[in-house]
Amino acid sequence: MSQLKTAMAILIEVFHSYSGKEGDKYKLNKSELKNLLETELEIDGGERREIKDMMRDLDADGDGEVDFQEYVTMVAAMTMVFNEFFQKY
Amino acid sequence: MSQLKTAMAILIEVFHSYSGKEGDKYKLNKSELKNLLETELEIDGGERREIKDMMRDLDADGDGEVDFQEYVTMVAAMTMVFNEFFQKY
Repeated sequence: MSQLKTAMAILIEVFHSYSGKEGDKYKLNKSELKNLLETELEIDGGERREIKDMMRDLDADGDGEVDFQEYVTMVAAMTMVFNEFFQKY
Repeated sequence: MSQLKTAMAILIEVFHSYSGKEGDKYKLNKSELKNLLETELEIDGGERREIKDMMRDLDADGDGEVDFQEYVTMVAAMTMVFNEFFQKY
């Protein structure tokens, strides 16, 4: 499998490994999102307020959870930040 | 490095391995895009017209090339298609 397909498969696998834990297995609730951020991106979930803010920013359709499209949009935005970082150094 | 960070690093590496070949090393021109699609995604670049259509669809800022943001948007959209496929089967 090509590098790009491998990366896409990982994005899907990571999402489902966290979203499948509680409630709707195709969406990330607050604790699943916090878990993903802390474990995968070492982003300290911090207090409830930070997670609430991030959830609100990511939750484009306002249903209180993060679906796959909202998750991929977040990953794309973060990848761009990393890419800009690499371009400068 | 976490799975998610690995995937993001691969997305960046793949882009630069194709964009760096000719001209602006931070953008994909037509032949670089065709090369990426065929090699990474086994999407047959087909005739010039298919590539021209794909380039036009991806090239959000209309500069005739695909930059990192347009590339990541394409990958995100394709990942969603693959994800929906997995959810059904």
